[in-house]
Parts: sequence; C-alpha cells; structure tokens
Amino acid sequence: MSTAGQVIKCKAAVAWESGKPLSIEEVEVAPPQKNEVRVKILFTSLCHTDVYFWDAKGQNPLFPRILGHEAGGIVESVGEGVTDLKPGDHVLPIFTGECKECPHCLSEESNMCDLLRINTDRGEMIHDGKSRFSINGKPIYHFLGTSTFSEYTVVHVGQVAKINPEAPLDKVCVLSCGMSTGFGATVNVAKPKKGQSVAIFGLGAVGLAAAEGARVSGASRIIGVDLNPSRFEQAKKFGVTEFVNPKDHDKPVQKVIAEMTGGGVDRSVECTGSIQAMISAFECVHDGWGVAVLVGVPSKDDAFQTHPVNLLNERTLKGTFFGNYKPRTDIPAVVEKYMNKELELDKFITHSVPFSEINKAFELMLAGEGLRCVIRMDA
Amino acid sequence: MSTAGQVIKCKAAVAWESGKPLSIEEVEVAPPQKNEVRVKILFTSLCHTDVYFWDAKGQNPLFPRILGHEAGGIVESVGEGVTDLKPGDHVLPIFTGECKECPHCLSEESNMCDLLRINTDRGEMIHDGKSRFSINGKPIYHFLGTSTFSEYTVVHVGQVAKINPEAPLDKVCVLSCGMSTGFGATVNVAKPKKGQSVAIFGLGAVGLAAAEGARVSGASRIIGVDLNPSRFEQAKKFGVTEFVNPKDHDKPVQKVIAEMTGGGVDRSVECTGSIQAMISAFECVHDGWGVAVLVGVPSKDDAFQTHPVNLLNERTLKGTFFGNYKPRTDIPAVVEKYMNKELELDKFITHSVPFSEINKAFELMLAGEGLRCVIRMDA
Repeated sequence: MSTAGQVIKCKAAVAWESGKPLSIEEVEVAPPQKNEVRVKILFTSLCHTDVYFWDAKGQNPLFPRILGHEAGGIVESVGEGVTDLKPGDHVLPIFTGECKECPHCLSEESNMCDLLRINTDRGEMIHDGKSRFSINGKPIYHFLGTSTFSEYTVVHVGQVAKINPEAPLDKVCVLSCGMSTGFGATVNVAKPKKGQSVAIFGLGAVGLAAAEGARVSGASRIIGVDLNPSRFEQAKKFGVTEFVNPKDHDKPVQKVIAEMTGGGVDRSVECTGSIQAMISAFECVHDGWGVAVLVGVPSKDDAFQTHPVNLLNERTLKGTFFGNYKPRTDIPAVVEKYMNKELELDKFITHSVPFSEINKAFELMLAGEGLRCVIRMDA
Repeated sequence: MSTAGQVIKCKAAVAWESGKPLSIEEVEVAPPQKNEVRVKILFTSLCHTDVYFWDAKGQNPLFPRILGHEAGGIVESVGEGVTDLKPGDHVLPIFTGECKECPHCLSEESNMCDLLRINTDRGEMIHDGKSRFSINGKPIYHFLGTSTFSEYTVVHVGQVAKINPEAPLDKVCVLSCGMSTGFGATVNVAKPKKGQSVAIFGLGAVGLAAAEGARVSGASRIIGVDLNPSRFEQAKKFGVTEFVNPKDHDKPVQKVIAEMTGGGVDRSVECTGSIQAMISAFECVHDGWGVAVLVGVPSKDDAFQTHPVNLLNERTLKGTFFGNYKPRTDIPAVVEKYMNKELELDKFITHSVPFSEINKAFELMLAGEGLRCVIRMDA
C-alpha cells in the first residue's frame, strides 16, 4: 500500500533538551510539500556537528529536535514540482543544498547556494516555515533540513543527491558530510600534484578523509599533525607517512615542518578548527607555490593573523565548505569513486549500532573512540 | 673598437648619501665575470623602490650606491659561461632573477628563484662578492643587481630578459618592474574571467597596470579604490569604470563594495602596501569564488588579520611577487603583447628627462606627479 500523501507514523530519536540522551519516540511525518522529498532512512552516521548542536553550548538551543545529517536512504514519495527524483531512488540527504538557480549554483567555483546554504538555526522547512515532524500534534524541529535520526524524514529536493542504487548505503552514507568534506578539501581545493607533500592538521575523521584525498592524489609524503599521539597508529592505515605532535617541540610546528621538508610542504589541509592550527597550517606551506586549505570551523571570536609577507611570498590561503562539492551535481560521482575502488570508505566506519542504541554512538564520539559509527535504522 | 674585456669609463648617477640628490659621476665599470653580462643602458625609468632605498628610512643604508632597476639596454659583452646572450641583444635587466636550476625555477608556479631572488641588502655581485663599479679605485655599491642609473652596468645573466630587438626600449623599459608587477598580478594570479568585476586598491602606476590587466581580461567592471581623488580622472584612461574613496564613507570600504556589487567583487588586487587596504581587498571579494591578490609591500610590523569564516566561505587570498613572471622565461612574451597592441604601455609614461636631469624624476615622484618618468641615457 502506498504511503504517498499520507502521514507516516514511525520511530525517531528526539533530542528533548541539550545534552540529554535522545529518546526514541513515535513521530508523525507529514507528506512532502512543494519541492520536498520524503525519504526512508536506512543508515545514518553520527558527525561532530550533531553532537555540537545536541550539546548546544554557545548556540541558540532549539528543542525538541530531530538531529542527524549523514545518511543514506530511499525516496518514499515526492512533493509537487519534484521531477528529477521518484519513489525508489537511492539518495543521500545533504546538510547544504543546491537550488541550481542562484549565482552560487551557476558559478563553477562555488557550492554555497543562496537558497539552501547550511542554516543551523532553522528548525522548519523553508516552503511554509513549518515542521513536518510532530508528536501528538506538537511540532518537533528539523535540523539542517535533514533530520536523519528518523525512519522517515522530509528534505528539500535541493538537498538530496541521487546516487547509484547499487552503492551500499551502509558505507556511502558517510559521504553525505564528513568524508566528502575532508576528501574534497584535498582533491578539489588543495589539489596536490603527484609526488607532492601534504600536511594534514587534525587526524579525526575529516582529517583522515583529507589524507585519503592526498593518498588518492599520489602525494609522496603525508604529514599528520595532532596533539593526541594515540591517533597516529590509526592514521597509518590512511596513508599518513609521518607524524608531528606540536607538544613534542619547543618551536612552532610550522618551523618543524619547514625543516622536515626543505622549506615547507606543498599543500596543507587544516581540519581542527583551532585558530593556532590554522595559522600553522598556512605558515607551513612552501613559499612560491604552497597552498593551505582551511576546513575546520573556528570559534566566533577567533582572528586569523599572519605577517602579510607570508602571503606576498606566493603562498595561497583558501577556505572550503563541504569540500567544494555541489551536493546534487558532484556527490553522485564521489559515490562512483567508492564503487570503482578509487576511494576507500570502509576504514572510516569503526562502529555500528542498531537505532535503539543510538545514544551509544554519542558516547563513543564523546569518548573520542573510533571515526564513524553507523546507525542501522531497521535494527 | 670592441670594449669587451676592458674597463669602461662612463657616466653614472651616484647616490652618495640618503635623501641627497644623485650626482652624475664618471665611473669605471669592470668587465663581466662568470655568468655576468655588461649592458649598455639606453633608457631607465624611476620606480618607488629606487626612491625608497635612496631615502633609506628604515633600512640599512648602503652608500655610495648606483640605484635604478627599470630599464632597457643592449648587451655590450658577456662573461664566461654565458651562452644564451651575445653582444647586441636587446634586453631588460630585472631586479629578481631566474637561475633555471633551483626548485623555484623548476616549479611551474613560482618565480622566487633561490639564487637570484630580490635582495635589497646586497651591494656586490654574487660571483665574487665585489662591485663592478668604482671611482678612483673606490667601489660603489650595486642595487638589486641591476644599477641601471649608469650608461653601462653589469648584471647576472639570470637577471636579464632577452627581448624582441624591434621593441622600442623607451617604452618597454617599464616592463622590467612596475608594469609587469601589476599586470601580472591580475592576468597571472587574480585571473578574472571575461565579464567579471575587479576592484583595484591603489591607483598608482602598479595599480593602473593591474587595471590594464583587468581591461585586457575583459572585466565588466573595474572599481578603483584610492584615498586621493585626484587619481580618479587619470584612472579612467586605464579602463577603471567606478571609483570609491574610503574617506567618503562611514562604513568600511569592503562593505561599500559589497553593496555596489551584490555581495562582493569577483577579484581584487591590492597595490598600496597598507595593511588596512589588504584586509579590505580580501574582505570585499564575493564569497564562494572571490580571489584577492596582494601586491603592495607592507611594513615589517604589520599583521594581516581577518575572521577565518571569511576564508571558510570559499574566498581565496594570494600574494604575488613580480606578477608571478619568471624574468627570463616570461617577460619576452609580455613585450610581445605590447608589440601586438594587446597591452598598452605608452599611457604609463607621463614624463621623460635626459640623464643629466635624473633628479627631476625623483622630484616628480616625490610630488606624486605622473606615473613613470623615463630617463634618456644618451641625452
């Protein structure tokens, strides 16, 4: 029996207040409206951003809310005006969108869509300013337009990437945020040439995805920088060839790297969000041709600061958002890279839990254990 | 009669002490040594860097010295090991070199030669640490390895660009520093696409050369920013379409430009060296794709500072040196652009004086009058 046009009752993990364990509830999911898609989520993974907004320190708290934004699923039904997706399509919901009409979407260089750019404060759908989730008639807020910690969710069509139906959703779900962010930062923005050296600041999941980008690009040296030496052993699996712990040195880490590399690395990618790491990542690239790429999200009050001569000596500093991928146009091809075995994803998935144990995924992340924990919705 | 191998007696303008008028003297110019070339200078123009080191405020003063680095001339003789230049070749001496062997010269992206990179402190030739200039046996210091305020000078072969002998040296001499620096910053580094908007900070000679680069690239809007409104009229000849004087606005100039352009210009080029202008030039480019290029040389104690989110929103910040041109490899082709009438140079040459009146060129520059004053050595 088709559920199209009907309210669907299903399970969702609701965050009722900041920092408290999620609670699995029965929610009602309204049908998709104009330019919306309702998706049955099969797998979702936990990303730091979920934890950050669950913890809600320093932001406007918005509760009750259904978090979740890294996921894979199948289209259940589509709303008015949706022509390029149909029920049964395999998709990745993405936390930022692509309207295909604004100046950013029309630019070859940008993926920062004016209409659907990430908005962490918005808890409703943009079509009518209302939530599609409710419990006993009381609305539950959306998160990033994705809210994948639910068996069914409603997403704007501009935030849905249609992918190869043969791709295993329990693996490629991690491409809907973290892995694409890190991998794209290297392959789309830093663009190391074969044989060049790359420094990666921060060896969490995003940093290791950046390292995977360096490996795929044929980098000769991949230098991992982290304050936590326990991450070094794991990072070896990701092609990181050398390690620098800034705590082990009296001099700034950019000087240590310059000495290791005859003047600096060819490329660097910063994946911590620490302002000091950003400055080091920039100053550790070689003059003449070095390119530093910032990925990590800083604090509101941080100031990036450097002597302008570091720039005039022909260094380039760039920032990136979601690895410069356009969600709908580019992500299907990243999934193909996994299918063609160019890009490895399995090594990022260190844990898996059934939906009923979603709070375990939070505990693992808070303990700094593992990289990605995939949550199985049907279990 | 060949002068090769002989000491040449000729006239040179000697700076005996900081800030005092140059004095035309008879100097002895020794023959070129290994990897050196002796050049008969026909035309030289005055650049701010000459005035800066003549004024010698804030640097190690090095006197007596023969200044000058923008020039055109003809090879008189070559030293041992010089195979790609011969007497009679038309050349531009360049203040920075290209050895063709170091990592920078071997990199496609860099022009910051390890051996011959600009060195303002060096007053002698690198071959033997001695000067080729003397008066009554007393050495006179070189400047930038070029010292073109002399009828004859000795230059390292790596600092000599061999150009089309039909190119008028009284015009193309300005390509040996300032015009290439500004033009290259736009066409080689900022790389505006046809129809894009470009902001130029500083409408002096280098900034106008950057505007010329924007014009040649087919920019739709060229927004000139300067604190001195008297420069706006002249700038119209260089294709600048709109003007912003930061003094006319209560809000930061980057906000003014963002409002004029629906979010920011596509490209900006900073040619003042003011740290505030550098920050404005960066922050005035559009998120998603904007590229800001720094050209102006800052003070030693300046710090470039911006909120890292300005970078993360996919802006690019780059610095450039000599417009990213490799002196020997690339400058001959820039001369050809002038010969093909793609690039206009004549409009930069606002004054001309005979060598005997070289101090007038200094007076004009100190008064902020005109753009380039060409000094005729034979007059």
